[in-house]
Amino acid sequence: MYTLGVDIGSTTSKAVILEDGENIVASSIVIATVGTAGVEEAVKNVLNFSKLELNDIKVVVATGYGRMNYDVADYKVSELTCHALGVHKEFPNVRTVIDIGGQDAKVISLAANGKMTNFVMNDKCAAGTGRFLDVMANILNLDIQDLEVEALKSDNPANISSTCTVFAESEVISQLATGRNIPDLVAGICKSVAVRVAALAKRVGIVEEVCMSGGVAKNSGVRNAMSKELGVDIVFSKDAQLMGALGAAIYGFKKL
Amino acid sequence: MYTLGVDIGSTTSKAVILEDGENIVASSIVIATVGTAGVEEAVKNVLNFSKLELNDIKVVVATGYGRMNYDVADYKVSELTCHALGVHKEFPNVRTVIDIGGQDAKVISLAANGKMTNFVMNDKCAAGTGRFLDVMANILNLDIQDLEVEALKSDNPANISSTCTVFAESEVISQLATGRNIPDLVAGICKSVAVRVAALAKRVGIVEEVCMSGGVAKNSGVRNAMSKELGVDIVFSKDAQLMGALGAAIYGFKKL
Ligand code: SF4
Repeated sequence: MYTLGVDIGSTTSKAVILEDGENIVASSIVIATVGTAGVEEAVKNVLNFSKLELNDIKVVVATGYGRMNYDVADYKVSELTCHALGVHKEFPNVRTVIDIGGQDAKVISLAANGKMTNFVMNDKCAAGTGRFLDVMANILNLDIQDLEVEALKSDNPANISSTCTVFAESEVISQLATGRNIPDLVAGICKSVAVRVAALAKRVGIVEEVCMSGGVAKNSGVRNAMSKELGVDIVFSKDAQLMGALGAAIYGFKKL
Repeated sequence: MYTLGVDIGSTTSKAVILEDGENIVASSIVIATVGTAGVEEAVKNVLNFSKLELNDIKVVVATGYGRMNYDVADYKVSELTCHALGVHKEFPNVRTVIDIGGQDAKVISLAANGKMTNFVMNDKCAAGTGRFLDVMANILNLDIQDLEVEALKSDNPANISSTCTVFAESEVISQLATGRNIPDLVAGICKSVAVRVAALAKRVGIVEEVCMSGGVAKNSGVRNAMSKELGVDIVFSKDAQLMGALGAAIYGFKKL
């Protein structure tokens, strides 16, 4: 019995095919494009990988920012619900999920049974989101994937006093002009994201285990800084970006 | 009896020479430069204009962001106090001062005698400050002074849904790409500043008369939008940028 979960985010579309609510058969992550082209490609990919056809899929569930425009879905479900389901499946002991996406950040508290009990979200301010990292990578002339490597080279993160993306950008530019090295700047930038999201996380209360998901969680610079900020270990899956789509597929299975 | 007030802001330095705490003898506004060069030039200007020498000045009072580095000052006084004094002198009936500077915004409540009774301030977020306008002028390839003229041409301000400077920048870029005209975009940008600062102002409570000061107040596009947002008339002095320096000079006179 196959279910398909798609997570249509602001910067990437993700698709997961799940067999019997248990085994991931195929997954795909595609850079989002205008309209539904990104999610359509992600779905085409997972069908190809799994050698299945859309007819073989019993239920399609969409989540994420762009779910309302995806008419193939049988259900459209909030990303909070789907994230909670996906993370609980991968990490049954996790009680706090910190998800940092391309232009938002959310922190979800889970009960022992995986049910969401509380959450806080920032989708109004670019600070503490992937967008902050994009802006900074751009002024440092780095690819977003390079940030992790650079951050790991530093043992003395630059101090960035402004939380605001715009003011922090000016700080980074002026520190760059005075010769501060790139690794320290990048480590400071990662720390800034962690500090901002940690403040959000403290509002729901941190209960271990703590897990990070979302595109930004792939960056160990941010994960390490978050771990320091919160004083806890942070679990992380290499499939962190897939948690929403996985949860959507699980949701679909539960609806069968 | 002459007193000199200087207001060392983040983007401009202002100086005012006052005679007997009453008459403005000379004033100067200079674009801020590194260190104290900007304020020194402003002071040189007012001395030149008034044909006075520093020895003729009984008291020098500094206010603003950079006041701590200006050692010529006999007193260093908060910009809130100085703004209140300057505005009360120019507009004795004003009870609410909305001051939007280069990278902050503050709203000050005054009693009938001109004493500050309450204030709120934003110096953490670039939205609702001159910096927001700088960023937007830059992507529209306009000078900051052009914004007013463009805004006045519009009778249908573009809707900018994000408050955040970074997210609003993306919205403006994408509206520009779909052919939205510059005047409507600029009017929408001015409105965005007004909406943001009006929310701040409502936290102290709006009591008329309401006055705008600070560099951004020179832009009638922002003033008109603010007037609409708050539903009150807004008084404005062409010397709006000088209120802090004027207040500093008055403070100096009171100390004689
Ligand atoms: S603090 Fe900066 S990044 Fe955050 S909303 Fe304000 S302008 Fe945007």
